[in-house]
Amino acid sequence: MKIDHYKNIELEKITDPKTKGVTKRVLISPKDGAPNFTMRMFHVETGGYTFHHSHDFEHEVFITEGKGLVISENGSTPVEKGFSVLIEPGEIHQIKNTGETELTFLCLIPNQK
Amino acid sequence: MKIDHYKNIELEKITDPKTKGVTKRVLISPKDGAPNFTMRMFHVETGGYTFHHSHDFEHEVFITEGKGLVISENGSTPVEKGFSVLIEPGEIHQIKNTGETELTFLCLIPNQK
Repeated sequence: MKIDHYKNIELEKITDPKTKGVTKRVLISPKDGAPNFTMRMFHVETGGYTFHHSHDFEHEVFITEGKGLVISENGSTPVEKGFSVLIEPGEIHQIKNTGETELTFLCLIPNQK
Repeated sequence: MKIDHYKNIELEKITDPKTKGVTKRVLISPKDGAPNFTMRMFHVETGGYTFHHSHDFEHEVFITEGKGLVISENGSTPVEKGFSVLIEPGEIHQIKNTGETELTFLCLIPNQK
């Protein structure tokens, strides 16, 4: 069993210029004994955004703080604290912080990609 | 892609008397196209608790509201909003609401159990 507050877990800066103002924490991963999927937390500064891309594995997202937009091939959908988002394998996606405070969300991925 | 606020998703009462004051929402599941794992949200009333049990699949938990205890073979650990918990396959576990407000957490499980 691993029990910890996210603030105790290392914060990693995403440095790729295709993103803006994004940091990440890996809350639960195979290193902790997770057999099937990995829980990450992302923080996005006001005006920041994640990659605009697609890949062959899914994301399961839950917004824990803030407001933003989920961008897909079909347009933009406003989200805020309390929204869940399933991004299926192959779907183009990006998350932008359009609010006045930090946008924070969980994003889970399978271990086998 | 599925995007929705949790309050729009059906609330199911857990009626088993081995639990107390627990309701559940299935936020993301294979019915939505999730290939590998399922995201559920649990609400536990003040004084309520989930099953005290173990099983052969993992839980990945994130506390979104409230305060409580995670009970394992090794004792009780206080948790509150912002804590993540990995319960590995086979580990005995229970979550109790010891706070004055509702305890809410995400609990993800693999689709193949």
